[in-house]
Amino acid sequence: MKRYYVRDLESMQQQKVLVKGWIHRIHDLGRIVFVTLRDKTGLVQLVLDERQKEGLRLEMALEVTGTVAENPKAIGGVEIKVDGIRIVGQAHYDKLPFAVNREEGVHLETQLNHRTISLRNPKTRAPFTIQNEIVAAFSEYLKENDFSEIHTPKIISSGTEGGSEMFTVKYFDTRAFLAQSPQFYKQMMVGAGFERVFEIGHAYRAELHNTWRHLNEYVSLDIEMGFIEDENDIMDLEEDLLKYILNHLNKNCKKELELLQVELPVITSIPRIELEKAREILLEEYNKKSPLGNLDAEGEILFSKYIKEKYDSDFVFLTRYPASKRPVYTMPVRDEPELTRSFDLIFRGLEITTGGQRIHDYIQLTDNMIAFGLNPEDFDFYLETFRYGMPPHGGLAIGLERLTMKFCQLENIREATLLPRDMKRITP
Amino acid sequence: MKRYYVRDLESMQQQKVLVKGWIHRIHDLGRIVFVTLRDKTGLVQLVLDERQKEGLRLEMALEVTGTVAENPKAIGGVEIKVDGIRIVGQAHYDKLPFAVNREEGVHLETQLNHRTISLRNPKTRAPFTIQNEIVAAFSEYLKENDFSEIHTPKIISSGTEGGSEMFTVKYFDTRAFLAQSPQFYKQMMVGAGFERVFEIGHAYRAELHNTWRHLNEYVSLDIEMGFIEDENDIMDLEEDLLKYILNHLNKNCKKELELLQVELPVITSIPRIELEKAREILLEEYNKKSPLGNLDAEGEILFSKYIKEKYDSDFVFLTRYPASKRPVYTMPVRDEPELTRSFDLIFRGLEITTGGQRIHDYIQLTDNMIAFGLNPEDFDFYLETFRYGMPPHGGLAIGLERLTMKFCQLENIREATLLPRDMKRITP
Repeated sequence: MKRYYVRDLESMQQQKVLVKGWIHRIHDLGRIVFVTLRDKTGLVQLVLDERQKEGLRLEMALEVTGTVAENPKAIGGVEIKVDGIRIVGQAHYDKLPFAVNREEGVHLETQLNHRTISLRNPKTRAPFTIQNEIVAAFSEYLKENDFSEIHTPKIISSGTEGGSEMFTVKYFDTRAFLAQSPQFYKQMMVGAGFERVFEIGHAYRAELHNTWRHLNEYVSLDIEMGFIEDENDIMDLEEDLLKYILNHLNKNCKKELELLQVELPVITSIPRIELEKAREILLEEYNKKSPLGNLDAEGEILFSKYIKEKYDSDFVFLTRYPASKRPVYTMPVRDEPELTRSFDLIFRGLEITTGGQRIHDYIQLTDNMIAFGLNPEDFDFYLETFRYGMPPHGGLAIGLERLTMKFCQLENIREATLLPRDMKRITP
Repeated sequence: MKRYYVRDLESMQQQKVLVKGWIHRIHDLGRIVFVTLRDKTGLVQLVLDERQKEGLRLEMALEVTGTVAENPKAIGGVEIKVDGIRIVGQAHYDKLPFAVNREEGVHLETQLNHRTISLRNPKTRAPFTIQNEIVAAFSEYLKENDFSEIHTPKIISSGTEGGSEMFTVKYFDTRAFLAQSPQFYKQMMVGAGFERVFEIGHAYRAELHNTWRHLNEYVSLDIEMGFIEDENDIMDLEEDLLKYILNHLNKNCKKELELLQVELPVITSIPRIELEKAREILLEEYNKKSPLGNLDAEGEILFSKYIKEKYDSDFVFLTRYPASKRPVYTMPVRDEPELTRSFDLIFRGLEITTGGQRIHDYIQLTDNMIAFGLNPEDFDFYLETFRYGMPPHGGLAIGLERLTMKFCQLENIREATLLPRDMKRITP
């Protein structure tokens, strides 16, 4: 017998169906018992008699056969009059760690300690459907624009920025690191002839932060693009990509957005403002002082507010970060070498992207390494590509969990992570 | 001016175009110079005069404007009469490590040492286009069949199979491991309500193998599916999935398959044969003795040959592996508990998948852990899900590089890996 998902039952009126799922709720009226069955796609009311309820407990997994009937009062407008019920996943508990069928009131730490139980709540699971569709739209858009997907090593021999804040791995008889980003490799793959590449992969940061917006292991959406004119090509790409993703989510995640009671931002055009200018505005408008060559978290929030009021945009590109605040491979501005062709994208007060044009000339790059106090010989595996015709290129990285968190208006990045890794958590 | 890819030039006869790419070949006839330009999509002949050739060297990156003209003798049937040429990626070398424009004769180790240079050869890069399309078809098929993509941690606190052959990571003040597979987590996500999940992610094996078919870091295509009847549902899924992938590749990778001079296998139906039976056949037909409860590498090759002759199939499922050879979570056969509901998929002599049904009952699973000499308390993060209604489920994992290698008929798995990690190689 064919299994039906709950979402498809409305069109199955008066027909016999097989459904599968978990017991979400039991409402026992004595002679008649209403059981809410939960599957991947939704909730449906089962109508059982006294005899059929025998042994049923919350969260058991069931296979149920019965006839679909209209019931305007039931969720989804239908219910199932049950013929047969088979317990396929037994309950072995005294009590649940918390009520799966209530949406609020469970502390995040408790949820994370019992992650697979908390995820059974449809509202807790909804951000991950949205996350899925972000990834789907991201790769769809890039493939349509001639980008190749790459998979680069996460076990590396040396750090992109000198090896600080990296996790170390014992790799047979040698010491290796977990990659902070695929930065060097994605650039190398541009030079290897792929021209345009993207990667959806883990990145690792051994940062001593334990905040609502930091994870020590996260999914990085990385892009690198060759044969560009300058960093504006990269910002153009990101703007267009984000429009595509938002459009895709509005089309494919209606149910989840409703469940989360959020509306997605609308992008018409994203303002591009030089960092220095942003610092001045913050000082003038809010009497807010910013750290040298940067904004702090408060500054990002205030500046987002300013941009929202002035340009009606939830996003803003901050451009021309000082060279002293950017990695060694960042392209300086020709006539103002203390500034770079780099940018951050701030979305509703939070940085979700860092990007820019990279140095592509071998001599300029090795000189810059020396100026940064690095030894080019340590980076020969990276520099080699630059000796053999490296085109102008640039790229960006988007933190998947950050983007999900902000789109879903979650308060903590862990809510956008199935199984978060932070300073205190490597389990479950 | 709009940039054109080489693949699109045929339709641009007599028109002025901008193309970008690398110098693949220079054929200098004195007054006239033919330069072959290589971009992501192909090769095209540029026609230059004496003056324009100034300073050009192999592998420089160029932007070129010119007029497309018919030339039946040139690759692709067209050439470009060059107006303007701009060197955007300089050459800084005395000589190339090897000729990029020749396809054969470069030792694999040399290629891997200069990976981004070797990948510039279109034939070396072709398997990665095929790999891309395998991944695209894999996720497309699964999404259409209601699977959710998941991203699970690669930093874990304990091993799925007891911690042998794992890389250790210093995770702040504690010791952690790199995940050998997302096995536990994908099962947990089935139980978390996703029901059907897949993951495309790195897996790590600290195995002391240095062979043509082993990598220490590889991409695992993982699937797990809830509410199944038994392991046959999983084999059905894989058979259907592989047909879908092959169909997709035949449609989307014509050029690459031609370049590699390979034909993809055709699947009508994949035979399912019990391991014990296969061992008997090997003994009878080839006088080949197999190790207890398994086939060795030679046995896999011989048995594939037998299946090809007898069933005209390039694939064969070996089923019912003994419990002693399978992990603790493998579902035993009810009346023959020394056998399991597990399988391997052998493709042209190489195992590309391990899969099967898993134990879903909490008591049975903890009992089995004890029988395996494991302490269930060490696995409580995994077992918890099983206390709250875990449905019957199963899944499989496909090694992406192995599948790519076999589809492309490559001799070494490193040829199907951009930047391989093996016992001796963590760079580039």
